[in-house]
Amino acid sequence: MTTSIKGKVAIVGAGNVGATTAFALMNSGTVSEIALIDINREKAEGEAMDLSHGGAFVEPVDVYVGDYEDCWDADVVVITAGASQKPGESRMELLERNVSIFEDMVPQITERIDPETVLLVVTNPVDILSYVTWEVSNLPHERIIGSGTVLDTARFKQVLSQHCDVAAQNVHAYVIGEHGDSEVPVWSSAHLAGMPFDDFCSACLRDCGPDIKDELSEKIAGAAYEIIDKKGATNYAVALATAEIIDAIVRDEDTILTVSTLMQGQHGLDDVYLSLPSVVNRRGVRQVLEYDLTDEEHEQLHASAETLQERLDELDLR
Amino acid sequence: MTTSIKGKVAIVGAGNVGATTAFALMNSGTVSEIALIDINREKAEGEAMDLSHGGAFVEPVDVYVGDYEDCWDADVVVITAGASQKPGESRMELLERNVSIFEDMVPQITERIDPETVLLVVTNPVDILSYVTWEVSNLPHERIIGSGTVLDTARFKQVLSQHCDVAAQNVHAYVIGEHGDSEVPVWSSAHLAGMPFDDFCSACLRDCGPDIKDELSEKIAGAAYEIIDKKGATNYAVALATAEIIDAIVRDEDTILTVSTLMQGQHGLDDVYLSLPSVVNRRGVRQVLEYDLTDEEHEQLHASAETLQERLDELDLR
Amino acid sequence: MTTSIKGKVAIVGAGNVGATTAFALMNSGTVSEIALIDINREKAEGEAMDLSHGGAFVEPVDVYVGDYEDCWDADVVVITAGASQKPGESRMELLERNVSIFEDMVPQITERIDPETVLLVVTNPVDILSYVTWEVSNLPHERIIGSGTVLDTARFKQVLSQHCDVAAQNVHAYVIGEHGDSEVPVWSSAHLAGMPFDDFCSACLRDCGPDIKDELSEKIAGAAYEIIDKKGATNYAVALATAEIIDAIVRDEDTILTVSTLMQGQHGLDDVYLSLPSVVNRRGVRQVLEYDLTDEEHEQLHASAETLQERLDELDLR
Amino acid sequence: MTTSIKGKVAIVGAGNVGATTAFALMNSGTVSEIALIDINREKAEGEAMDLSHGGAFVEPVDVYVGDYEDCWDADVVVITAGASQKPGESRMELLERNVSIFEDMVPQITERIDPETVLLVVTNPVDILSYVTWEVSNLPHERIIGSGTVLDTARFKQVLSQHCDVAAQNVHAYVIGEHGDSEVPVWSSAHLAGMPFDDFCSACLRDCGPDIKDELSEKIAGAAYEIIDKKGATNYAVALATAEIIDAIVRDEDTILTVSTLMQGQHGLDDVYLSLPSVVNRRGVRQVLEYDLTDEEHEQLHASAETLQERLDELDLR
Ligand SMILES: NC(=O)c1ccc[n+]([C@@H]2O[C@H](COP(=O)([O-])OP(=O)(O)OC[C@H]3O[C@@H](n4cnc5c(N)ncnc54)[C@H](O)[C@@H]3O)[C@@H](O)[C@H]2O)c1
Ligand SMILES: NC(=O)c1ccc[n+]([C@@H]2O[C@H](COP(=O)([O-])OP(=O)(O)OC[C@H]3O[C@@H](n4cnc5c(N)ncnc54)[C@H](O)[C@@H]3O)[C@@H](O)[C@H]2O)c1
Ligand SMILES: NC(=O)c1ccc[n+]([C@@H]2O[C@H](COP(=O)([O-])OP(=O)(O)OC[C@H]3O[C@@H](n4cnc5c(N)ncnc54)[C@H](O)[C@@H]3O)[C@@H](O)[C@H]2O)c1
Ligand SMILES: NC(=O)c1ccc[n+]([C@@H]2O[C@H](COP(=O)([O-])OP(=O)(O)OC[C@H]3O[C@@H](n4cnc5c(N)ncnc54)[C@H](O)[C@@H]3O)[C@@H](O)[C@H]2O)c1
Repeated sequence: MTTSIKGKVAIVGAGNVGATTAFALMNSGTVSEIALIDINREKAEGEAMDLSHGGAFVEPVDVYVGDYEDCWDADVVVITAGASQKPGESRMELLERNVSIFEDMVPQITERIDPETVLLVVTNPVDILSYVTWEVSNLPHERIIGSGTVLDTARFKQVLSQHCDVAAQNVHAYVIGEHGDSEVPVWSSAHLAGMPFDDFCSACLRDCGPDIKDELSEKIAGAAYEIIDKKGATNYAVALATAEIIDAIVRDEDTILTVSTLMQGQHGLDDVYLSLPSVVNRRGVRQVLEYDLTDEEHEQLHASAETLQERLDELDLR
Repeated sequence: MTTSIKGKVAIVGAGNVGATTAFALMNSGTVSEIALIDINREKAEGEAMDLSHGGAFVEPVDVYVGDYEDCWDADVVVITAGASQKPGESRMELLERNVSIFEDMVPQITERIDPETVLLVVTNPVDILSYVTWEVSNLPHERIIGSGTVLDTARFKQVLSQHCDVAAQNVHAYVIGEHGDSEVPVWSSAHLAGMPFDDFCSACLRDCGPDIKDELSEKIAGAAYEIIDKKGATNYAVALATAEIIDAIVRDEDTILTVSTLMQGQHGLDDVYLSLPSVVNRRGVRQVLEYDLTDEEHEQLHASAETLQERLDELDLR
Repeated sequence: MTTSIKGKVAIVGAGNVGATTAFALMNSGTVSEIALIDINREKAEGEAMDLSHGGAFVEPVDVYVGDYEDCWDADVVVITAGASQKPGESRMELLERNVSIFEDMVPQITERIDPETVLLVVTNPVDILSYVTWEVSNLPHERIIGSGTVLDTARFKQVLSQHCDVAAQNVHAYVIGEHGDSEVPVWSSAHLAGMPFDDFCSACLRDCGPDIKDELSEKIAGAAYEIIDKKGATNYAVALATAEIIDAIVRDEDTILTVSTLMQGQHGLDDVYLSLPSVVNRRGVRQVLEYDLTDEEHEQLHASAETLQERLDELDLR
Repeated sequence: MTTSIKGKVAIVGAGNVGATTAFALMNSGTVSEIALIDINREKAEGEAMDLSHGGAFVEPVDVYVGDYEDCWDADVVVITAGASQKPGESRMELLERNVSIFEDMVPQITERIDPETVLLVVTNPVDILSYVTWEVSNLPHERIIGSGTVLDTARFKQVLSQHCDVAAQNVHAYVIGEHGDSEVPVWSSAHLAGMPFDDFCSACLRDCGPDIKDELSEKIAGAAYEIIDKKGATNYAVALATAEIIDAIVRDEDTILTVSTLMQGQHGLDDVYLSLPSVVNRRGVRQVLEYDLTDEEHEQLHASAETLQERLDELDLR
């Protein structure tokens, strides 16, 4: 009944996102051991030193530079490692480079991995690389999760929260599909304060015009680009999103999260990783929820899946 | 009796340290409003967007880009703004550039400032710039605090904790003096588990050799250089240290922290900002504690103060 | 724009519920000052001593025995004071006794109260006594809140969470109306994982039978009786519910909570205190949300309101 | 290297202290599963229901009524079960009754216990009953811990903190020996703000008179009696103390705590359980620290040990 946890997370890739995720985990106190692994060992050492110097201010936690074998007995291995775009390199060339990094890295992570360890992929394109990780690792798909649209869902909530002046905790809305341009904000099931968005809208005295949904959708879809434009990268919200998924796993929470996971017939989709609301617990994804979409949303989801499938086909993995 | 708090922090300088401090504050839930102010407004906008997208994962908090007037009604204004070294620029030239930034910036921060707002300087050289802030602002010195050696003290604890295998929470040791090369780790009052370091050492079966204190002292003093060497800058531990000071102020804690503060005769020192253990609460520094140092430590502290005084003299502020 | 907070809560009634609420507040770290006030000063002293001895384990907080004047500068005054049923005493007689306690106590609480202090009534029957507090105090109704069905709403979520095996954080469902026998669980807007309850039910493979809603409703309505039967009183969940409301106020959150508040035409109801989802922030109740109910729910709500109105009429307050 | 944790605590005895400890654990989020076991199953059911209704307000946690077999795979089993004094019963008679309860209960707890589970005794007289638990269980003494003077140490810190107006977090002082009348507050190593108490005293401008230590010592020793007198029992601070010990174990912290543990030559003491500062981690007590006491303190400690040894002898266990 009780699953075993070790209170240990291994983070492969101590870059911007990996180190900030370690910091978020230190602050939340979920685990007592964090190993940082990076091909650039010096970078990982610098981050581990800086993080561990904060030890006196948080719940006791051991942050250190590790090796792949630190993944084997971790509760969760977070993969944020990846190459960045070289000048003149196309998106597809970058992806191919990352795929070969994963083909080399994943076997080292899983070599003698504990049968209860869950792998959480964050590197982009996250849906493709989660699929690759699953293929390469040969592990049960439930235990290979992509961070998917958990971040986009958080942005959807935040944007609605600010626009409608209600705490983000009272906004319930999902973004599904690809973590990327083809993602689908599910307006039909968006709720504020327990009311469907349209009802809340009519109850609210402000008149935001007929195009408000499109405007807000664009804001969500454009958020990552806008931040990268302004500060060069994103790290804080994605770190909190990743920490939230880790929490759901380590604490065996059965929390609903729009993680990226293998489709097996849901909404007629198959053999592709993408995000749908899913129940996450100590074993990874317990169940993918399939729920009512409008025809338009259904089509958008299928278009999103096709984009991903095409990319997988181009990679010629299968 | 009860002081008034607004649950608001303004951070001037949304760089590496400023943004990470905002993130640490979001995670700790101390305040419900964080304003980021930066001469590079776009950078501040990017950070505020990224941070606020994490809103659904933490206690409700409003993070936004502000202006200097957001400082006026904040509980604490954190100053992390500063110029970075230009190629060929000497340390003194950089300092002079930062001093003129402060001379321009501080009056805007304090123009109509609430009489209960505390200013917390983090920009380096923090002891000099805290003094400058005090001079320029004309505010009571209790309300102008430098982050001083709070970070170095945390490093001292961490290094001892790891070396002696005892939780950092059970190590009590201070670094005093300048936040910089001349800082003084006060070994004579270092305690582990309630025992003076020397007693703990003899009780412990390991033999760490006669030079262990010097080795560990060097490790602490060299930490910042080593991290900057490895990852280019430091941000995580300093952000937690800054958040800890903010906590002590906002929650009116009477916590002992080695913040940088105006010397007024303590250990025979005067008219210089440096760090000694001090009681920090809603009003800033309530009291600077003056406690027994060995003769060697006393001399080291005086040497540290002289370094700072010389630099202040060169600046010709007084 | 920024409201002023003092980080102080006064609790009138240091009984079972009042002391446990103080303990929950200590643990959450929301405020730094908690004053306990009770007609039985010795009881309050014992609780304050016991609570304050835990001070070394939590964020610094000052817990002490206070007087009515401690209410005047608090952010929130929580009222949990009340008489308990005497042998042979009818429910109406007990209520009359509590009303006269409130008529005596409330003016002392509000005598020189800060214009920003919010009063939060917890004593039962909470809807009636919130109304009485409002009448007696002559303060704006927004600032007199009853804890209402916040606890019942939490129970609804918990019962659904356990029954359907989904984290309570992903269940959204409200109980409205009286905090008592006539309360109304709003099944029509209950959501799990973003899906309406009925949809979730059909998606779920288990067959729970046609009467499952009635069974679960009974479980919620009977919960308080069952606990009182088994352990003599309830205190833990109500303390967390109360702390949640306090959080929403002190942190100015705009959180949706089913607090008890004055009806002014919502769903055709007037001049009675009862619970509907409401936006709570630093000023108390910002807005009462009026949203779609089924005809049956609408009728149940009206029946619930009538029960309360009759009781108010019997009291002959108006 | 990594020890295995399950994030589960079993509490035997769902009385005042047991239930409040469960509540403290819910608030701190350390574990995700709490089983309550009590001979009075109805009481345990009532507490579990009440606690679990708060689930929506905290990190997901499963609180339920369990059986002895729930102890077998817990990280920590907390024992707060015990009989209360009957009218006319002597202290020794009560103790004998509790000893026979433990002789019956402990074998059921340990029947098929995981080799990593730690037992934490809280029932009074805690030093005697920890010894009994060790004897009866035949488990390694490191894994049988008594809560000892962790609570008294917290009271010592709180009393010094309030008297000297310094945050409790900056006060370091231990109470050792018996958890009871013969306990020894170790003034010789008490530190405030890094300064020995006497130095702090001379630096402080107030003159508290020559008898201040005795006065404060009495306040600490009398605290439990005073609280029991005023409110009938103590529960809040002891619950936080117990949660702190659990944290140190589950998080493998190497924290120094004055838990009650088997003496094996420390300060010349043997074959008795009492409290000295000890390093606590996932395996229980890693090391008992033996540090300098004044002659008077040494004598007091021996007197305290004798009291306990006499009681053990009377019980005729060995
Ligand atoms: N899924 C999301 O929601 C989301 C959000 C933001 C960023 N991301 C993605 O996260 C990834 C990391 O972003 P970042 O900003 O941290 O980048 P970064 O460049 O700062 O960090 C990447 C790190 O990976 C390391 N690395 C490269 N190859 C490696 C290998 N073979 N083994 C181990 N480590 C290796 C690098 O040394 C570097 O430290 C990117 O792919 C980014 O697109 C995803
Ligand atoms: N005291 C400590 O313990 C400690 C530790 C680490 C860093 N630091 C210091 O903190 C400072 C900031 O470091 P960083 O890594 O964040 O640097 P950074 O370069 O990332 O950020 C500095 C920010 O200040 C802004 N800025 C410059 N001039 C400004 C002005 N006039 N008004 C408003 N904003 C202005 C810049 O636009 C930039 O965003 C440095 O001085 C660094 O040495 C102190
Ligand atoms: N609203 C809810 O969701 C909810 C849930 C649980 C309990 N309650 C209610 O909370 C109230 C308190 O319950 P409890 O279990 O703490 O009861 P309790 O008897 O333990 O505590 C009541 C306290 O009020 C004090 N008191 C009585 N008259 C007073 C006066 N004039 N001034 C100051 N203090 C006075 C008493 O001395 C006592 O300490 C009850 O009315 C109970 O029904 C409400
Ligand atoms: N060590 C400390 O610092 C400290 C502090 C406070 C209280 N205590 C002690 O904690 C103990 C519990 O105090 P309390 O206030 O919770 O008492 P309580 O009477 O409220 O609870 C004791 C519980 O133990 C249960 N119990 C009795 N026999 C049992 C058995 N054989 N198996 C299972 N459960 C059994 C009872 O049903 C009851 O629910 C007391 O011994 C008290 O002195 C210790």
